[in-house]
Formats: sequence, structure tokens, C-alpha cells
Amino acid sequence: MLPKTRTYHDPLHGAITLDSANRVEALLIELIDTSVFQRLRRIRQLGPASLTFHGAEGSRFTHSLGVMAIARRAFDRLAALYPVLDQYRAAVLCAALLHDVGHGPFSHTAEEVFGGHHEHWTRRILESAPEVRRLLDGFSSDLWLEIAQIYQHQHPVPCVWQLVSSQLDCDRIDYLMRDSYFTGASYGQLDLDRILLALDYDLASQQLIVAKKGLGAIEHYLVVRYFMYAQIYNHPKNLVATWVLEQTIHRARKLMAEGALEADDTMAAWLSHSIDELPLDKYLAQDDYVLHYHLQRWQTHGDGVLADLCQRFVNRRLPKATEISHYTYAQQTDILAAARRQAYGLVPDTDIYLGLRHTRNRGYTLYQRGIKLKMPGELVAISQLSPLVRTLIQPCHRTWLLHPAELPVAKILAEFKLGAGDSEIADEF
Amino acid sequence: MLPKTRTYHDPLHGAITLDSANRVEALLIELIDTSVFQRLRRIRQLGPASLTFHGAEGSRFTHSLGVMAIARRAFDRLAALYPVLDQYRAAVLCAALLHDVGHGPFSHTAEEVFGGHHEHWTRRILESAPEVRRLLDGFSSDLWLEIAQIYQHQHPVPCVWQLVSSQLDCDRIDYLMRDSYFTGASYGQLDLDRILLALDYDLASQQLIVAKKGLGAIEHYLVVRYFMYAQIYNHPKNLVATWVLEQTIHRARKLMAEGALEADDTMAAWLSHSIDELPLDKYLAQDDYVLHYHLQRWQTHGDGVLADLCQRFVNRRLPKATEISHYTYAQQTDILAAARRQAYGLVPDTDIYLGLRHTRNRGYTLYQRGIKLKMPGELVAISQLSPLVRTLIQPCHRTWLLHPAELPVAKILAEFKLGAGDSEIADEF
Amino acid sequence: MLPKTRTYHDPLHGAITLDSANRVEALLIELIDTSVFQRLRRIRQLGPASLTFHGAEGSRFTHSLGVMAIARRAFDRLAALYPVLDQYRAAVLCAALLHDVGHGPFSHTAEEVFGGHHEHWTRRILESAPEVRRLLDGFSSDLWLEIAQIYQHQHPVPCVWQLVSSQLDCDRIDYLMRDSYFTGASYGQLDLDRILLALDYDLASQQLIVAKKGLGAIEHYLVVRYFMYAQIYNHPKNLVATWVLEQTIHRARKLMAEGALEADDTMAAWLSHSIDELPLDKYLAQDDYVLHYHLQRWQTHGDGVLADLCQRFVNRRLPKATEISHYTYAQQTDILAAARRQAYGLVPDTDIYLGLRHTRNRGYTLYQRGIKLKMPGELVAISQLSPLVRTLIQPCHRTWLLHPAELPVAKILAEFKLGAGDSEIADEF
Amino acid sequence: MLPKTRTYHDPLHGAITLDSANRVEALLIELIDTSVFQRLRRIRQLGPASLTFHGAEGSRFTHSLGVMAIARRAFDRLAALYPVLDQYRAAVLCAALLHDVGHGPFSHTAEEVFGGHHEHWTRRILESAPEVRRLLDGFSSDLWLEIAQIYQHQHPVPCVWQLVSSQLDCDRIDYLMRDSYFTGASYGQLDLDRILLALDYDLASQQLIVAKKGLGAIEHYLVVRYFMYAQIYNHPKNLVATWVLEQTIHRARKLMAEGALEADDTMAAWLSHSIDELPLDKYLAQDDYVLHYHLQRWQTHGDGVLADLCQRFVNRRLPKATEISHYTYAQQTDILAAARRQAYGLVPDTDIYLGLRHTRNRGYTLYQRGIKLKMPGELVAISQLSPLVRTLIQPCHRTWLLHPAELPVAKILAEFKLGAGDSEIADEF
Repeated sequence: MLPKTRTYHDPLHGAITLDSANRVEALLIELIDTSVFQRLRRIRQLGPASLTFHGAEGSRFTHSLGVMAIARRAFDRLAALYPVLDQYRAAVLCAALLHDVGHGPFSHTAEEVFGGHHEHWTRRILESAPEVRRLLDGFSSDLWLEIAQIYQHQHPVPCVWQLVSSQLDCDRIDYLMRDSYFTGASYGQLDLDRILLALDYDLASQQLIVAKKGLGAIEHYLVVRYFMYAQIYNHPKNLVATWVLEQTIHRARKLMAEGALEADDTMAAWLSHSIDELPLDKYLAQDDYVLHYHLQRWQTHGDGVLADLCQRFVNRRLPKATEISHYTYAQQTDILAAARRQAYGLVPDTDIYLGLRHTRNRGYTLYQRGIKLKMPGELVAISQLSPLVRTLIQPCHRTWLLHPAELPVAKILAEFKLGAGDSEIADEF
Repeated sequence: MLPKTRTYHDPLHGAITLDSANRVEALLIELIDTSVFQRLRRIRQLGPASLTFHGAEGSRFTHSLGVMAIARRAFDRLAALYPVLDQYRAAVLCAALLHDVGHGPFSHTAEEVFGGHHEHWTRRILESAPEVRRLLDGFSSDLWLEIAQIYQHQHPVPCVWQLVSSQLDCDRIDYLMRDSYFTGASYGQLDLDRILLALDYDLASQQLIVAKKGLGAIEHYLVVRYFMYAQIYNHPKNLVATWVLEQTIHRARKLMAEGALEADDTMAAWLSHSIDELPLDKYLAQDDYVLHYHLQRWQTHGDGVLADLCQRFVNRRLPKATEISHYTYAQQTDILAAARRQAYGLVPDTDIYLGLRHTRNRGYTLYQRGIKLKMPGELVAISQLSPLVRTLIQPCHRTWLLHPAELPVAKILAEFKLGAGDSEIADEF
Repeated sequence: MLPKTRTYHDPLHGAITLDSANRVEALLIELIDTSVFQRLRRIRQLGPASLTFHGAEGSRFTHSLGVMAIARRAFDRLAALYPVLDQYRAAVLCAALLHDVGHGPFSHTAEEVFGGHHEHWTRRILESAPEVRRLLDGFSSDLWLEIAQIYQHQHPVPCVWQLVSSQLDCDRIDYLMRDSYFTGASYGQLDLDRILLALDYDLASQQLIVAKKGLGAIEHYLVVRYFMYAQIYNHPKNLVATWVLEQTIHRARKLMAEGALEADDTMAAWLSHSIDELPLDKYLAQDDYVLHYHLQRWQTHGDGVLADLCQRFVNRRLPKATEISHYTYAQQTDILAAARRQAYGLVPDTDIYLGLRHTRNRGYTLYQRGIKLKMPGELVAISQLSPLVRTLIQPCHRTWLLHPAELPVAKILAEFKLGAGDSEIADEF
Repeated sequence: MLPKTRTYHDPLHGAITLDSANRVEALLIELIDTSVFQRLRRIRQLGPASLTFHGAEGSRFTHSLGVMAIARRAFDRLAALYPVLDQYRAAVLCAALLHDVGHGPFSHTAEEVFGGHHEHWTRRILESAPEVRRLLDGFSSDLWLEIAQIYQHQHPVPCVWQLVSSQLDCDRIDYLMRDSYFTGASYGQLDLDRILLALDYDLASQQLIVAKKGLGAIEHYLVVRYFMYAQIYNHPKNLVATWVLEQTIHRARKLMAEGALEADDTMAAWLSHSIDELPLDKYLAQDDYVLHYHLQRWQTHGDGVLADLCQRFVNRRLPKATEISHYTYAQQTDILAAARRQAYGLVPDTDIYLGLRHTRNRGYTLYQRGIKLKMPGELVAISQLSPLVRTLIQPCHRTWLLHPAELPVAKILAEFKLGAGDSEIADEF
């Protein structure tokens, strides 16, 4: 008879089949079934990005399954070549599956807005969430710690954490593929097979490395990452949506402190405390549904600013962003001030409705341990071998003026001459 | 200079560009920007189906854009061949865009559970929602009525409503393509180009018809529809999730009637009234976020049954479905009774936690006007030309026993002999 | 160090990696490198179909790699569940790889035209081609015989031959997927993962069977097969191209017999003998290049009929096909006669340039062993379980009049009244 | 009734429908039907690349249809915005369709090997091939000249030739997409919709330019081009196959000059003359079939070298390539000499069987007119705006030693110390 399996049909990875006769995979099934992991269904992978790219409606749940699926393919291939790795299968696959359980509502957006850190919460869940810890302990007594070491890059075998969390990890591979698939941005497509074939293990240093022949596949992956950040994640409309959310939460915190806001226990706790000090259950009770529900409620709140911000977010009546990167820093500050003067009367509060936003985009960073290629006799950093990668290291800074749609920004900017006397008229997003 | 356009990058249809210099498309942009249409972002296309197919997380908003995009391609091609159709462009495209604005939370699921009718609400929105009506009236005074005629199949030119709502309409084409793409069920892929090339217009009867050469493309579309219903929409796990939701709402209604349930204004109205008689603003205030928020809250309600049902739904601890189609109707009733006896003690209430569910799946129906092919000298119904389509007309009935996962169903069924003495052991889903 | 592998990057199956450290896969690499297998690069998978579907330019070589890749996935999954199968890995994979080595120019088209049988030649190559036989014998002394048994459905374990050659084999799965991919006929796309998950092995009968849950996936596969035959393989333009080729070869044989044709040794042998009695080297020397080269040469031959037929084929100046299926058999014969009378003077020889062609299309046949599903306690034929499959069993017969493009066929047909007095005007292809 | 159209179903561009009621498209249909254009079916797009990437079996015919399809989309969108362009539709679409009619066997490979120039022949066909010229003249008397101007970048409206032949033309877009699709190299996928939306027309300079917002889409296109060259077109195995073909033709020319080679008229003419001086009919008589046919024949030629080279090419028994880029120029020469000494006896002639090959890969060149973006008040070269593009301008030079597979290259190289005493052991391809 066919074995007892569970299959997730994934649009990117096809059938992801877990075999309950395999001890590690049985554990994965049980972890997926915890309420802590199911909660990821209620957290959008890309926060408010679907307001800009309508297909981006997927959750951390689907992404987490995908990371685990890629990690299994990558790990099982390496472990077949280097059986010494076999002992780490449970740690790698559980770490891949659970790496995002600590996320709050709207993923990274909430971190920026509320100030919590999902890594902190992933670790707390691992250590303290009873249903998770019990399952891990049931498998082996130090599994939870091993997973925590992976997240902190302290696992004694670097390859083990590098598969899950490094510049070339299964997390990034899945989200690039997935976000490309769902947003319809076809330039985000990776050649997963070629990337997996490029991965190798260095017995001496115990690192995840790249075979010399794989240089092209990895260069391509890094370029794709650059494009996805430049075109999707840092799209100016996305900045605007995040910024409106941020202003909304600031206002809500202020009103809550003044006793002028109604919210349920969970939301009240999130608005009144430093997020990372919340009790675990209060943290886990928060998700996109709870947060968005409150935003919807507050659309009719007595405070005009809060009500207006919520209406704008809920109904996607978003401000605009105009790039002003080519002005000096001093000019940018003056432009903001001028824009605020002009906007007087257009919006309830010009300090709240106009602002500057800086982005920094790069496809590769040199921090920590970078990607290394196996060249004859030595491991060489990819940045030494690839002019393309060296270009991606240079961050691209951009500055945006966020402002009401009705504001005549071109007219304002016209008064701020560029060095070369250029009369730049900016695009509005 | 490039014209002022708005582009939606769609994973299925590529760049959907609306040109604001075109009067019809400018209207479409404004309609998309209404809060009534933006609300569709908060209503999942497939209700709770993502509990079964994790990729099915898309909203009615993305689907509605897609229907409009397909309708535009189909209509513009026909109108180029038959300029007499040109005058209906606004009606067809607006009708395509707005056809789902009346949906409630979890789409069709909510209709089954709460008893409302989305067609009723789409019409009320068209007629009475100020921001929508004002835009339509601004375009032309009878546009709203023309759109309403389309939905009611009463537009004087049948082709006009057939493009939007018939057995071969742009709505179905988009949802089959989209649900296939997001669930990863590759057997749902259509050949959109071939379908669009197959469409023709019959000047005499003013109907949307199919060119003789297009028979294969349309047969394939109907077969795909059959498979998507059989494998995705009517998947037993989907039945189970819907059923849990239904039981939950029944229980909540009961408690609400007893004054024993806390809910906000919107939810209270939905639980206390016949849905189709709600005021428009109360109807529109409801969506997936509001409903799911309450389900999450009720997980800790004092009523053990309600709390348990909500916990099961929110954390996806779903009952099982076992097919019992091959038993007689009388046996099915006896099986349910026996199962309820056995389940005593396992669940808080065996009437609520065990039940039967019937599905009827078919790929084509003969009701109303069917799909017609242009044969020499006459229009012929596709069912007369295609043995495959005739097969799809036969409904496939199935019956499921829904029951707690722990119940030993095989043992219970073993006592219900089939005619041939067959000791059928059923699959559990 | 990474193992010595060879990777074929396949547009359908991704990276197909063969590991030379694995004895079976090392053999596969060596078989691929034989001139007998490389010859498949010179034989188009779909013969002259690229004249109708321009993307259909792929070779038997790429298809054969694909069949092997699918067979490996299917076999390795089953062998992991049923280790008793392990011993057949070499036989299954070699049989999958080599199943088409016996094909002649333009694949099946050449068989129809020249009258040879590729199965006959596959077996002769297996037995007698030195480079192939030496490799197989080097692996094990009875491997070649085991492979031959697979092709003849005589292997003692039916599952072994069923994976390679049955109504649900890896050959058909690959060609449906591949031909769909290359022709752009998206209705040919299969859900390979679901099909592979549906396959099971029946220990008692040693057959390849389908799990009950897999019914939908297999129904879909059979429907796709039906559509691909109806729309692609039996496309009337394809019939026409094949028919021109057939007439050309008949004429060339006649001229060769009269000593009035120049051809090289290979071509001369093919035109003068019964194909299946050729010496092996003469058979293998023939391929698309050799045949097409001669067709190009004969464009200037002194025999006007041969020259004209070759010019038509080479430059794609093809006759037309008009469906006359709805006429009685007697009428069809009369129509041909009438058409020949009308065509007198239009073409060099009306017997050669006008003809009838019959096609019979069905998605499933009942011959031999059909596909069986594992139902509780017994194996049941899929045709008993599925109304769709029963419909596909009914053959769909069609008759075509093949005729010069300039012939006014509608006028001719107008004189042949249908039973109901219908004045059918047929489409021309 | 539906109009008389012709549809090519393309795996990349979907249904490419030509409407014979449109005068330009009727001309395109007739041009496709000429024997000159049909000949492109017999010329592989990527020459011998299918020996390295087995899916690369498509012809110039399919590519040419694709270029025309993209050109039509791009042109029609621009002409709708700038009606002044309308008058150039025939020239642009015919130029796109016919741009490759001058190609010889194995496309660019034959140019390298035989020394002809396909641009020369495209122009001669345009001017002198009766069936083509007659059709063009029938449309308008100066159409052929206008098309010739496009190919020579002399058309008075630069946008017109830039669409067909520039650094951002429809030719490159199609071949990158197509070669990626057929080789399965998913990193070659472009975002065609975003590229087309990025294109704009500058009324002042009459150039094809890129809208500021389109920078990302064009950067991506250039990066993809870089990867496709680096990984596919310049793959070392591809160099090797081309080199074997080159050696074969050199040898055949030599033998032909000595009167020691049998070949048909066409082949004899190609081996005896400077290609570009051949009569048109002799040039057109050559194609992949004719050339490959002769290679197959010569496998048994009396000259051992010619026979061996042909056998290697036909049966894909190719030499190896080892990268020696990191050695100095002088060392590279010495390595070749040492390798030739070592290879003595292994091959019939070490001068023929060992050699060096240089490749130069870059994604963008600054020659001629580059891609310009429309910035406020001026057009700016993309290289000024994009660090990525500036990186792609830097050519990447590589040097390869081509040698028999059996030669112990690592041992030879070990004696050539690198500057840093590095004992580089090179990969073999």
C-alpha cells in the first residue's frame, strides 16, 4: 500500500510530499499542524505590497512550506554526497520551516511600524511555545537549541545555518521565486535547478560553498535579488503604503496613551508596550486580521487624523511619492518645508501627511560571511571573481518626498535649482 | 509623451494597461478606486479553500481585474469585426469589472452559510452605492441599468450579457485560469488564445457563438471546468471546512438570539437579520477580516461548542470526510446515526460534529441558453456535436460522511454491507 | 568534491543529472554517447508536423532523454516503496532511453510511407548493433533480452514493461508534455506530479496500477491525449503533408524501379527493398537529413510529377483538406470522382493529387491490459469507473477529401445533398 | 463571418494572427509563403548548439515569425501614440520578418566557417530574389529599398530601423526569449510586457527611446543578454563544436581544391568560391540539410582526417575545452605547443586537433547609437544612468585550449606556474 503521506501542491515546487514514516518528516507534519505555524496563514508575506502589486496576496505560511521544500532538496543532495551531514537533517528542515514563525502582522512592515523583531520572537516561540517545544523535545532534547543556533549563525557547522540564513539561503530563493510568480514580475525568475547544482560543501571549513562552474547561476540569483528589491520591494508606492500605516500606528499609540482609543486586549497591548516585552500569547494573538480589523473600525473614530489615515489605507487612497534624490540633502529638507507650507489646508496635519523617505538598495553585501567559490586550492569570495557582483555591492540610495496627491510638486521643485541649472520634473508614483 | 495610463501587472494576463485618455477606461480606473471595489481585496476568491490548497489566497479584487482584462480582449476583437457592437463597450467592461462587488465574506461560502445572494447585492450596489452610481451616471444616464440588464440576462443584445455571464463567459475563464495558477493544479490551464479566436458573433440572433473550428478549444474549456470542480472546488477537505464554518455561524446565531454573544455592530446585524434585508452600509462593512476577527475572538467564548468550532477553523483542526456514495440512501442515514452513537463523548455535540454532505459535479448544464456553434446554415448546440460535452452534462453525485478525525469509520462501515457483499473500506480526507 | 555527473538541462524536466558513480547511470551515459542514439538527433519527433505547428521541430533525441527522466522518477519512487523492484532499474531505464532508437526518418510518417516498423528495428539494434550490445552485455549478460521483453510486453513483471510501454507509460507522458510545450498548445499540459503520485504497484499481480485517489489525474491525462490527437497529431494539414510525402515516395519507388531515379546507396536501398529486410547499417544510415536532401534534389528531376511533389513538400505548397465525414461512404467515393474530373488540367495527375483520408481518434482503447485502479479488495478497470473515459473509448471517425487548393470544392459538394437536404459547406484546411 | 486570417500558434507569443483583409498583413502572409522564407525552416537558429543544449533545435523560421510578432506589438503601440509613424508599418514588419532570410547553414556558425555575411545576402535577396521582390514591388515601388535602408541603419527615421536592428530591437528580444524557452535556461526569461511599455518615441530626434520609468526593464534585458551569451551562446562545448565544423570545412576545401572530394553542385560551389560571390540560387540551395548530408557522407571518405572530423561532429564525439585565461599570452602559446607534443599519436594531426579559442563576452556595447532614456529636458545614454550597464560594457575575455578528450591537460598545465605559484587545475568541458 502507498505510505501515509501528506502532499502540499505548490504552484512553484509542485508536489511537496512529506512521508509520515520518516521520523523527521513526521515531525514536520506535526509542526505544520500547530496553531503557531497555522497563524502564518494570517500574515501576508509582503505586508501591504498587494496595494501596489495586486497578486502579492500570499502568506508566510505558503512561503515557509516553500523554504522547507527547497531546503530539503538542497540538503538531501549534499547529504548524499557528504554523509557526515546526515545528522543535521532535522535541524535544517525544522529551522527552514519555522524561520518565520516570529513574524508579526504585515511581516516586515509591522517591524518597522511597531518596532518589534521577528527573530527575537522566533527564538521565544522555539523556546517557550508549549506545542512547538514539546514536539521538538519529543524528537531530541537539544533540537530546539540546535535550531536556535542556526538562526544565530552559531551552529558549529556553518553549512547548516548557511542553508537557512545566509546570503545564499533557501529563504531568499523561495521568496524571490514566489514573489516573482505572484506579482507577475517575470524578471524575478530563478533557475532553481542550476542554483542547487552549484551548491557544494567544503569539508575543511564545513561551509556551504559554490562550485566554480556555478558562478553564473549565483551571479544571476544576486542580480535577480537586486531587481526584485529595486522594482518590487522598494517600489515607491510600497513606501507610501508603509508610511501611511506607520503614521496611523503612531497616531493610535498617542490616542491610546491619552485614553482616547478603543481597542481589544491584543491591540491595546501592542499599542501600549514595547513589542519585544509582550507576553508570548499577546504577541501571537496579533496578526493581519486583528490589525486590519482595527484599522477598519477606526475609520469612524472621533479623531479626524486617525479616521482619515485609516480610510486612506483601507480604501487605498494613498499619497504620492516623488523622487528628489538628485537634490542635495539641504535642498531636500527645504523642499519638505516648502511642500508642507503649500499643503497647509489640504490635509489635517502637514507634519503627518508629508515626509521624506530614504531607500538603499543593493543586491549583495559584504558583511559577515559572503558567498565563496571553490577555486583550485582555495575558497574565493564571489565579489573577487565577478565584476557584476562588485557592482551590486554599491548601494543605490534614493530619497522620496511623500505628499498628498493634490500637491503641485512640480511647481515646488521648479524653485529648487539643481547644480547644473537642470529643471528636473520628477515622476510621481 | 507617453499617455497617462495605469498598469496592473497580472501574473496571468501580463500588463493590463488602462488609458485615461479613453473615456471608458478612465471610468474603469475611477470604479476601481471606489471603496466598494477596493473592498474586494478583503474577500478571498475561494473562501476557505486555502486551508486545502495553500496557494489559493487570492482575492475577488485580482479576479475582477482579470475578468475585465479578458472581456476587453474578447470584446475589442469582436467589435473590430462587428462595429455595431462598439456602443456596448462601457456596459460590457463595467459589468465585467463589477460583477462580483456584491460578494460577502469568503465569497460563495458565506452565501451558503449566511443565506445572502451576491447577485442581489451587486445590483443594489449598482443602483444605490453613491460613489458607484455617481460615476456611472456621469458617463451616461442609463449605464447602470444596462449593466443591471447584463447581470439579469435581459440586455436586448444577448452577446453583451453572454460575454459577462453565461456558460462561456469571461468570469469563468478567468477563475479557472487563476485558480489553476494559484493552486498549482496545472490541469486547469486553458488555451486562452484559442478560446478567444473561437468566439464569434451571430448578426441574426445577436448571440455570442463559437466558430466551427473552435469546437476543440471549447470542449477543452468545459473539460477543464469539470476537473477544477471535481478536484479543487469540491475537494472533500473544502466541504469539511465550509461545513465547520456553517456550524459555527449557526451556533453564533443561536447564542446571539439568546443574548449570549458579543459582536460588533456589523457582525451583530449579520447574525440577527436576514442578510438580503440588511442596509447597504451594514452589508458592505462585512468582509473576511471582520468575520475572521470574530472567529478568532470566539475561540475563548464561554460556550464550549462555539469556542471549539472556532478553534478548529482558525487553527485548521478539521474533521474528516469519508465517501459513502456507494451506499443506498437509507444506509447513508443509518451510517450517520451509527457514527453519532460511536462519537458520543468524543465531541461536545454529535448532532453538530457529524453530518452528511452531498455534492453534484458537472462540467456543463443544459439550462437556459447553451453554447452554440456556427455550422453551415444554422447554429447548433455544442452538446449535439460533442460526445465529450454530453458526458459532462451527466451530473456526478457523491455523498460524504463528515466526522471527527478520531472516529473509527472503517469499523462502522464494515457493518453496512454493500449489495454485492463488498467490504468497502473508504478513504478518509 | 562534487561527483562526476552529466547534466542535461531540459525545458520540461529541468536538470536531468546522471551520476557516473552509479553503475546504471554510467551505462545510460555510455548509451547516449553511441552513434545509434545520437542518430535520433536527426529524426524529428513529429515528422512533418512543423509544417503545421512551427514550434514542433524537436527530435526523438530530446524526447528519449525525457522518457528516461520520467521513468527514473516514477521507478525510483515505486522502488523506494517496493524494494523488490530495485533489480529492474537498469532494464527499465535503458528500455525507456532506447525505446525509439529504431525510428526511421520523420518518425511515424516514414513508417506509413515506407512500410517499416520501428519496433522491429529497435529490437534488431538491441540485439545486433555492436556498440549498443557490447555496453549492455558489459553490464549484465541478459540485459538486452530483458529490455526486448519489455518492448514485447513479455517481461515476467508486468509493471516493468507497463512503465515503458502501456496506456499509461512514460513515453506517452513525455511526448504529450513535450509536444504541447513546443507547439504552444497549452491544453496538452499534464500535471506530472499528480500522475506520478497516483502510480502504485500491486504486489499480487505485479502490475503498475493507479491509486484510487489518482483517478482524476489519470482521467485528465487521457483527456489530454484525446485533445492532442484531435487537434495536433491528426490536424488535417498534417494529414495533407504526410500524404504528399507518401505520394512522393510512391513515385520515387516507381521511377527507381524503372531505373529513372538518381539516389545515393542508402536512399536507393530504401526505395528498392522491403524496409524491414534491409541490413542494419543501411537502415541506420537513413534519417531526416538523407531523406530531405533527396527531396530537395528531386525538385529539379525530369519527371514532372516527382519534381512537383518535392517542390510542394519542400516549400510547403500543400494541397487542402476538406472534411466530408457527414456524407455516406458511397457519396464520399462519388465526391472523389467528381473532384478528380474537375481537377483535370489543374494538376499533372488527378489520381495522385486527389484522394481520401480517414482518421480515427480516440483517447483510450480497451485492447490488451488497460489502466487499473486499486479499489478496496480488487483492481478495477478505469473504464468502469469513469464516464469520461468511456466516452473517450468511442472512436471518432473523420473523412477528408485531399485536393488542390484551387479546386472549387464547395461547388462540387453542393451537388451531393445530405440526407436532410442540408447544404453543408465545409471548411478547408 | 470571421475574417480570413492565418494564425501561427507560437509557444512564446501565443496566437500570432495575420488578417488577410489588412494590406500589410496580406503581404506578410505572401512573404512567409515564398520558398526563400520557407528555406529558413531548414536552418537552425543556434547552429550546432543543440549538441550542447539538446532543446535548441528550433529554426530561423520560427524565430523570424516571433520577431515580426514582437515588432508588430511594439510598432502598433507606438503608432497609436504617434500616428506619424503609421506610414512605416509595412517597412517595419517586412524588415522584421525578413531580417534573417540571408542566413546560411547553421546560422552564424556557417559565417565563421565559410566566411560569408548574412547581411549581404539578405540585401541581395531583397533586391534580386524574384518571388520576394515582386511581392514587395506589388505593395509599393520603394518598399524593398526602405527595408534595405532599415538593415543598413540609413532609414531617415531612426526609430524605424532601431525597432528591427539596434541594441534594443525585436530581433534580440525574440531570440533571448526563444533560446531561453527551448534550452530551458530560465535565467533568459524577459519581461516582454514591461519592455514594450518602456519603449517611447522621441518626436524631435525621431528615435526609439526608453521612458524614464522603464530603466529597470531595460537593465534587466541587458543583464539577461549578458547571461545568455556567457552561459549559452559562448558555452565552451559550443566553441568546440563550432571549431570541429570549421576544421572540417577547411579540410574539405583543401581536398576539393586537390580534386579529391565528392560533393554535389551546391556544396562544390560553396567549397570552391568566396561565398559572397556565389550566384543567388547557389547560395539559397545551401542549408543545414545539404551541409549535414555531406558531413554524413564524408564519414567514410578516404582522407582519414576528414572522415574522422565528420564522424566526431555527426556522432558528437567532441574534443574538450579547458580554460587557460589566467595564463599570460606567452604561456598560452607555450601550453598549446606542449599539448601538441603530448597529443602526438593520439590524433591524426595535432595542428588540426588542438587549438586556442578566444571569447569576448559583453552585455552592452557603446558603438553606434546606444539606448537612450528620456530624462527631463534631454535624452541620456543608459550607460550614464546605470552602474549595472556600465559593468556590462566591460568585455570579459576568456581563452580556451581545445584538445582531445584523452589528453592529460591537468598534468601539462601543472608545469606552467601562474604568477602567484598557484597550481591551478582547470575544469574540462
